Amino acid sequence: MHIKIQSTTRKEMVDITARVQEVVTASGMRSGLCHIFVPHTTAAITLNENADPDVQEDMNRTLSRLIPVDPDYRHMEGNSDAHMKASLIGASEVLAVRDGRLDLGRWQAIYFWEFDGPRKREVRILLLPQQERGF
Amino acid sequence: MHIKIQSTTRKEMVDITARVQEVVTASGMRSGLCHIFVPHTTAAITLNENADPDVQEDMNRTLSRLIPVDPDYRHMEGNSDAHMKASLIGASEVLAVRDGRLDLGRWQAIYFWEFDGPRKREVRILLLPQQERGF
Amino acid sequence: MHIKIQSTTRKEMVDITARVQEVVTASGMRSGLCHIFVPHTTAAITLNENADPDVQEDMNRTLSRLIPVDPDYRHMEGNSDAHMKASLIGASEVLAVRDGRLDLGRWQAIYFWEFDGPRKREVRILLLPQQERGF
Repeated sequence: MHIKIQSTTRKEMVDITARVQEVVTASGMRSGLCHIFVPHTTAAITLNENADPDVQEDMNRTLSRLIPVDPDYRHMEGNSDAHMKASLIGASEVLAVRDGRLDLGRWQAIYFWEFDGPRKREVRILLLPQQERGF
Repeated sequence: MHIKIQSTTRKEMVDITARVQEVVTASGMRSGLCHIFVPHTTAAITLNENADPDVQEDMNRTLSRLIPVDPDYRHMEGNSDAHMKASLIGASEVLAVRDGRLDLGRWQAIYFWEFDGPRKREVRILLLPQQERGF
Repeated sequence: MHIKIQSTTRKEMVDITARVQEVVTASGMRSGLCHIFVPHTTAAITLNENADPDVQEDMNRTLSRLIPVDPDYRHMEGNSDAHMKASLIGASEVLAVRDGRLDLGRWQAIYFWEFDGPRKREVRILLLPQQERGF
């Protein structure tokens, strides 16, 4: 199952929580693991606060200060900063599903994090149900 | 299944390996995956050395130097550094279970990493057993 | 199942994609999750670009600039930078398997990332199949 994303700027956090929940709901799975995966090397998946949009702004600014666009990079495409950010944040998240719902904390949202947009992107989801006798 | 944690300072690594193993043992699961999850946005889960406590001290210091508390942050709560650290380290770990034991390396422990304590926290665990014919 | 690795320098990214795929193929698993795990505290697993080797060079350089070898570290072994890098990048990746293939993006490879070599290392793999009726 795929979610399509069109990022609109170079750096952007896109809240995909509702769309991932839709996939879980449509599957009918009640309990198990939900694997959320970015098949790209200049974007990532993370969980963070869903309430104050300033958090996303602060995070984009902090990460860009940590990993600036560096004129010394050798990679010809000039987006090595985006590759580094992708490995720091990570290409996937694994979430538990309980009673048909993503088991997130009260303030957690799932973000697709674009580091080299705007681009057409996708997020892939695989669901692995617990067995009946599960733990 | 939940583990309750009471952090005692702003930044702290709490070794939860024995408590996670207790959950696995109590479940009776012999083989499969153990998903360890923090439902918070200013804390994380990581694996690291369990022998020399200086490693934890060095790591706390290094991460705080990378992501200082920044007077320019916009987020009103003033803990954007903690949100950034949470996304860098990550909200979950997935571990294999073999023969009823967490399959850790000799020097690996599971740490709950507090970035904005002291707070009451929890860690959630989901176990997904391999099928009998498993791989 | 294990993959053996002999790193040859202190910092090195080793592409293990083909070897992980061999393990998946040998298992006969068609669909499910593949857990790729480093049982070490000074190495990590990441996904990144497989085309231009300059990306790996840029990433090694950037990460070492972020986390330099620090004379103030307390840990006697003098490799606290490697421990910090391991927690930033992470000890595991979880990948989907579809139709018997690791479900990677076009430009993604799986890298074992050595931070304190040269050493003999291993990567452990656990496969968790979807049930027949899977999602």
